[in-house]
Amino acid sequence: MTLGLVAGGGAVPLQVAAAARAAGRDVFAVVIEGWADPADYRHLPHLAIRLGAAGQAIEILRARGIRQLVMCGAAKRPSFLSIRPDAGLARLLLKIGRAAWQGDDGLLKAVVRVLEEEGFEILPAQAILRDILAEAGRLGAVAPAAMALEDIRRGIAVVQALGAVDVGQGAVVQQGLVLGVEAIEGTDALLARCAGLRREGPGGVLVKLVKPGQDRRLDLPTVGPATIAGAAAAGLAGIAIEAGGTILVDRAATIAAADAAGLFLLAIRPDEFLKETAP
Amino acid sequence: MTLGLVAGGGAVPLQVAAAARAAGRDVFAVVIEGWADPADYRHLPHLAIRLGAAGQAIEILRARGIRQLVMCGAAKRPSFLSIRPDAGLARLLLKIGRAAWQGDDGLLKAVVRVLEEEGFEILPAQAILRDILAEAGRLGAVAPAAMALEDIRRGIAVVQALGAVDVGQGAVVQQGLVLGVEAIEGTDALLARCAGLRREGPGGVLVKLVKPGQDRRLDLPTVGPATIAGAAAAGLAGIAIEAGGTILVDRAATIAAADAAGLFLLAIRPDEFLKETAP
Repeated sequence: MTLGLVAGGGAVPLQVAAAARAAGRDVFAVVIEGWADPADYRHLPHLAIRLGAAGQAIEILRARGIRQLVMCGAAKRPSFLSIRPDAGLARLLLKIGRAAWQGDDGLLKAVVRVLEEEGFEILPAQAILRDILAEAGRLGAVAPAAMALEDIRRGIAVVQALGAVDVGQGAVVQQGLVLGVEAIEGTDALLARCAGLRREGPGGVLVKLVKPGQDRRLDLPTVGPATIAGAAAAGLAGIAIEAGGTILVDRAATIAAADAAGLFLLAIRPDEFLKETAP
Repeated sequence: MTLGLVAGGGAVPLQVAAAARAAGRDVFAVVIEGWADPADYRHLPHLAIRLGAAGQAIEILRARGIRQLVMCGAAKRPSFLSIRPDAGLARLLLKIGRAAWQGDDGLLKAVVRVLEEEGFEILPAQAILRDILAEAGRLGAVAPAAMALEDIRRGIAVVQALGAVDVGQGAVVQQGLVLGVEAIEGTDALLARCAGLRREGPGGVLVKLVKPGQDRRLDLPTVGPATIAGAAAAGLAGIAIEAGGTILVDRAATIAAADAAGLFLLAIRPDEFLKETAP
């Protein structure tokens, strides 16, 4: 059965397509303009549309008999007024209502609910790419120092508080100071500005976690070689990610980059980590 | 009795000095290098020292018979390792302990507690500058639109969640999207990056609040003409600040700048605001 792939930016949707095809499935991609480059999907049957034309995309998916969808890749969350919905999407948005415009995840969750009501099954990227999620433990060669464990504890508290109001997934902490908190700008921009905010002394940590209540089929935190490069440029000591809830874009390359930069890469279960490292 | 003024950056400490002298008090300023420019204090008896030499500053204040202190102005929070404390400060830091290095406010509160134990009385800037705090209500000519009231509600939720983990005082929200959250970078930097993150459609709001449990003698949110300029450059519709808890740097100039830029400037009591605007 053909897999529908709703593709945002970055390498993950392309990896999903490759893995699905390697497993013998046909793939039809809906490439969202402004998020992904349609040229990257030339080798696949695909439709390149603006986000607001989602109504039309749903009709085309349905006409092709597609029932299973994976939605993944980097997305720039739109404002209500910039979407200019087509007739089909306008009808869906009416169903969703204004609650969808509260919080980062409100819209995504509502879209999934509506797609399910429309008869689609939404699969997580990790159902296709089995080894894409980080397992618990140290992923590279570098171990975090005691100060870094303290900073991770503080980062967990901050990211969980933010997640509770449905904002962001990341924070940078150095020696107990919260250098930066991620909202809509994304992790790369967070790391770039923290390079100018860091203090003397040992480098800080980036903590990225899944939001409480987040639908794990969508929008998981993603770490890749670019994240490692950004963290290294910001002078950080390492990165803590959520085990079982973080996509490693290119596992081998990501770990190799962390090792080469002397950064630790630690996948944690936040509540267990807090217990194990309690003073 | 001579007033001791521990001066960070910006215009507020200079305004405090001028107001105290206009009221007939002598002022002795301790100008923190890297935060304030000692040249701005040439007209006053003052001591310019690095933050780490606070032990020496306390001795000098004591030797001059100074008992009352105002601590105000913009501060760059140091890392533990960059302070290089003198002997007196090292003794105080030992008293304070490591709890001080958790959270933005931990250190400040601990410093105040220790200074009080040392016999000093800490006055808020508003005890000297009586009209410096914003009173509740609309401060300029522009009224917020309904969408802005929604964005203020969302901003309150985000800033209160952050404040609960002792981070930052501000957030920018546009059409329900949290464009940015303030950590150590400060409001000006937050506004500067939000200019590049805003979406199509009506501009967002900057919400700045006092942290829950914050000592109101120290580090109150501060808004001035530069904040208005930054908000206007970011395409915002206006600014919501906490009534009774926000310093207006130059009241007349700030309001005039907001009016000229077409921005609203609204001083709210967050809990009352949430009740009054509940859907």
